[in-house]
Amino acid sequence: MNYSVQLLGISNAIVDVLAHVEDELIEKLGAVPGSMTLIDLERAREIYALMGPATEMSGGSVANTVAGFANLGGSAAYIGRVKADQLGRIFNHDMRSLGVDIRLQAGDDGLPTARSHVMITADGQRTMQTYLGACTELGVADITPDTVATPKAVLIEGYVWDLPEGPELTLKAIDIAKQNGTTVALSLSDSFCVERHRDSFEHAIRNGVDIVVADEDEVGALLQTESYDDMLESLNDYDNLFAITRSEKGSVIVHGDEHIVQQATPVEEVVDTTGAGDAYTAGFLYGWVNDQSLPECAKMGTICGATVIQQLGARIEPGLLDDYRG
Amino acid sequence: MNYSVQLLGISNAIVDVLAHVEDELIEKLGAVPGSMTLIDLERAREIYALMGPATEMSGGSVANTVAGFANLGGSAAYIGRVKADQLGRIFNHDMRSLGVDIRLQAGDDGLPTARSHVMITADGQRTMQTYLGACTELGVADITPDTVATPKAVLIEGYVWDLPEGPELTLKAIDIAKQNGTTVALSLSDSFCVERHRDSFEHAIRNGVDIVVADEDEVGALLQTESYDDMLESLNDYDNLFAITRSEKGSVIVHGDEHIVQQATPVEEVVDTTGAGDAYTAGFLYGWVNDQSLPECAKMGTICGATVIQQLGARIEPGLLDDYRG
Repeated sequence: MNYSVQLLGISNAIVDVLAHVEDELIEKLGAVPGSMTLIDLERAREIYALMGPATEMSGGSVANTVAGFANLGGSAAYIGRVKADQLGRIFNHDMRSLGVDIRLQAGDDGLPTARSHVMITADGQRTMQTYLGACTELGVADITPDTVATPKAVLIEGYVWDLPEGPELTLKAIDIAKQNGTTVALSLSDSFCVERHRDSFEHAIRNGVDIVVADEDEVGALLQTESYDDMLESLNDYDNLFAITRSEKGSVIVHGDEHIVQQATPVEEVVDTTGAGDAYTAGFLYGWVNDQSLPECAKMGTICGATVIQQLGARIEPGLLDDYRG
Repeated sequence: MNYSVQLLGISNAIVDVLAHVEDELIEKLGAVPGSMTLIDLERAREIYALMGPATEMSGGSVANTVAGFANLGGSAAYIGRVKADQLGRIFNHDMRSLGVDIRLQAGDDGLPTARSHVMITADGQRTMQTYLGACTELGVADITPDTVATPKAVLIEGYVWDLPEGPELTLKAIDIAKQNGTTVALSLSDSFCVERHRDSFEHAIRNGVDIVVADEDEVGALLQTESYDDMLESLNDYDNLFAITRSEKGSVIVHGDEHIVQQATPVEEVVDTTGAGDAYTAGFLYGWVNDQSLPECAKMGTICGATVIQQLGARIEPGLLDDYRG
């Protein structure tokens, strides 16, 4: 098989607007500390006005994974919607500068590029209020044999199911992937997202998804299990490969009754846990598309995750695995 | 005297676009490592395309000082030109969120908001290529008794002399300030800027400027002296107060034959020296407008400078001097 690229990401294209804030602001906004809430443009503008000096950088969960994957040396493509405004140009610039092939043109009309207001309190916790804007315009028509092409793997974000045409477009993407022998990976995004779409996720996982990447909470939400042991037992019933991160407990790859346990890499200081899961996924999939063994994939994911939590910002720097010899 | 605010800044309003780059890119651009070059919009777009993933944050030398001054708890206002585009909104947001009174409306037409492409190489050196855009539209008509009002001090940036109407508008600002008993401070910006405008600077310093803030190189360029001792001797001939930073050698305040020497604060690790001078100026002027003694002003400047070099980014966090008791 001749693959067009190693990895195609389909997800929400978001620019993060980060600022340090007082606890009182979170309270004033009525936000749950540490949570992610979707907001409209008017609310986005209100919040921005209340936030202190901010820093803008490209973000989005699977977009971070794709950027990290490209930085590791993988060939990647991306499907997500931005407008041709300054934030959209920033997002596309950051992707293209890593060699990522942007499959959709930035829109001249329509809603503004998505932004996530990331409010960091003194305890390091991040509360996010996200305006999805242009992301919501991602539609079935954007998913074609041309835009998807023939990647070795496609990674779809659970959050895409929140979009108006999300359920249909993901099914179409999975369908095209299956016709081309493309591995289909699904990121479960967050446990609330899993709660919102459990039945759809379950259906997709049983019909086309090969790999599920998630943290322990998200898998628990999917399977409605409480304990790690119950989770493992329930996963016995799936044909899929589950790559599950467990924070300081490391990660586990589950394939039926096969369990590959990977300890966490000891780190000197945790600076910022944002993007740890996305970075793990980048490393794991980089191993996967390069035909590494599952224990190797797990190690590569763990190295990437451990590195990202020791820096500010969610994206992996170039060449992280250059010196890695499994 | 009833002052409208404690400090008014007049300067170039710039958003920094920061990225880590390979040494080869600096070479390819024909740029002198560590230098600042002015570029046009076409070149700005070319450079942006060549840069890796970037982070956007408000910058500009005196704008950083004004933001830092506001963060220390001072009341501040600002005159500088941005367009009402996304970068302009980012810049004004960051200022306003600190309580800085923005005196000019963002332009609906005209050139785009200025951006400085800050390319950081592995050795931590920063090479800057700056498109001034909307800044160049700052004109004499923007400087009026209404926009200047009656601040306790006004701080003007040497770079303003590079603008088409720069020499005239600064003279007008100094004139208005003098009528209101406002202290006039001039930042020499950088030694190349001093080379470009030595005669104009000399004239302004002899006619209206009360305080000159600069580093040792810039003062050397102004006075055409080589050694520290020669510099001090030449300064004997000026009535102005010179607040001069000397990197790891600390700072010195010179007023005629009076020299107030302030040692540098020992720091554990220098992360990023960008903005150290701007932060020193913020602390120094914060002491000055609060009628502190010159040794106190020097100490406050030094604390601010030392803090900024231990963080990434040029702007001071809120409340830095809250615990300081002179």
